[in-house]
Amino acid sequence: MKSEKISDAVVRRLPVYLRYLNELSRREVPTVSSQELGQKLDLNPAQIRKDLAYFGDFGRKGIGYDVSYLIEKIRQILNLDQQINVALVGAGNLGQALSNYNAYLKDNMKIVAIFDTSAEKIGTQINSITVQPIEELVDTVRRNHVRIGIITVPNIEAQRVADQLVEAGIGAILNFAPTILKVPSDVRVHAADFTTDLMSLAYYLNAGKEVTVDES
Amino acid sequence: MKSEKISDAVVRRLPVYLRYLNELSRREVPTVSSQELGQKLDLNPAQIRKDLAYFGDFGRKGIGYDVSYLIEKIRQILNLDQQINVALVGAGNLGQALSNYNAYLKDNMKIVAIFDTSAEKIGTQINSITVQPIEELVDTVRRNHVRIGIITVPNIEAQRVADQLVEAGIGAILNFAPTILKVPSDVRVHAADFTTDLMSLAYYLNAGKEVTVDES
Repeated sequence: MKSEKISDAVVRRLPVYLRYLNELSRREVPTVSSQELGQKLDLNPAQIRKDLAYFGDFGRKGIGYDVSYLIEKIRQILNLDQQINVALVGAGNLGQALSNYNAYLKDNMKIVAIFDTSAEKIGTQINSITVQPIEELVDTVRRNHVRIGIITVPNIEAQRVADQLVEAGIGAILNFAPTILKVPSDVRVHAADFTTDLMSLAYYLNAGKEVTVDES
Repeated sequence: MKSEKISDAVVRRLPVYLRYLNELSRREVPTVSSQELGQKLDLNPAQIRKDLAYFGDFGRKGIGYDVSYLIEKIRQILNLDQQINVALVGAGNLGQALSNYNAYLKDNMKIVAIFDTSAEKIGTQINSITVQPIEELVDTVRRNHVRIGIITVPNIEAQRVADQLVEAGIGAILNFAPTILKVPSDVRVHAADFTTDLMSLAYYLNAGKEVTVDES
């Protein structure tokens, strides 16, 4: 089922598909075409068919994709059929904002622990989770089988936090600090720095009008 | 210079190159090889050479890239040689956290206005910017030639805010609300929803170990 050659770009689109499919499921829509997915998600339908074909032969000509079946398959592919515990390191504005998203994290994926160095924050509750001192990170992460760490500490603390997460056996890090982390090759890091998002958007400010007319 | 066929993935990597090149420039390093860039940024050197070749013939065999020249070129490509004003809509925890990044937004790209609907927030200062009522959005965005809008309002308000930004003539939106926005085709939207980031990371929790060993 799971190919070794799936690009990061494809993997990043799967949760976007899943989100819209979940919406369709709530509205009890039984099937969806790649055209409709493409229109809704601003993606080329051929791209969508190609993305989903990586994982198996899901679609049926003239009918489209079975929504429930596709949800189940994408959840399996993304390992979302397993319990995935997440730890958040840094309880500042950003950390607090991110913990609010726990409500959107479906199913088995949840922020289960929050850490900070500040005496004012330690012991307070954020969305029902008690902020723990960073000294408890390694032990708590191990005990709760946390598999993903989110880093929202200042730049200068980010590498040290990453080292502790790695020591505790984490498999992936979502890094909001605008710095490049050094981790072993079996730990996956995604940079969530929004300044790079903003800068890449700037590219389209001039290019946008010429490009979008001719495409798709 | 600017090709019509540059993929979004390439455009998204350019700010990452730029960030590291700026670091090299601060350290007064004159040249850098694609090997060194690749090692530092966890990217294949051939990929980096290909990315940069889209925009012209920057590198020199055996010497590498001239750091200052490459910084200047990437800034031009990303339109960062122009003044780019940004407006932030939503002054909650996330909005406040993002406005802190203003310090990292180099050069001409700055958050210049913040809007909210809450009477408690309107009139307060966040990083020296006074929060304005959302009713002033269209007028303020036009008057300040704001070109990018950041949406950090709750889901149910996001589309209405997007409509107002579009009405005011914005060219691009960075959307943190976990919902899909409808905008005209000449407005570029990037979804910055971190739940999709987290879900795509989950993919690598099992796949990671097998995949990384054989690659590059």
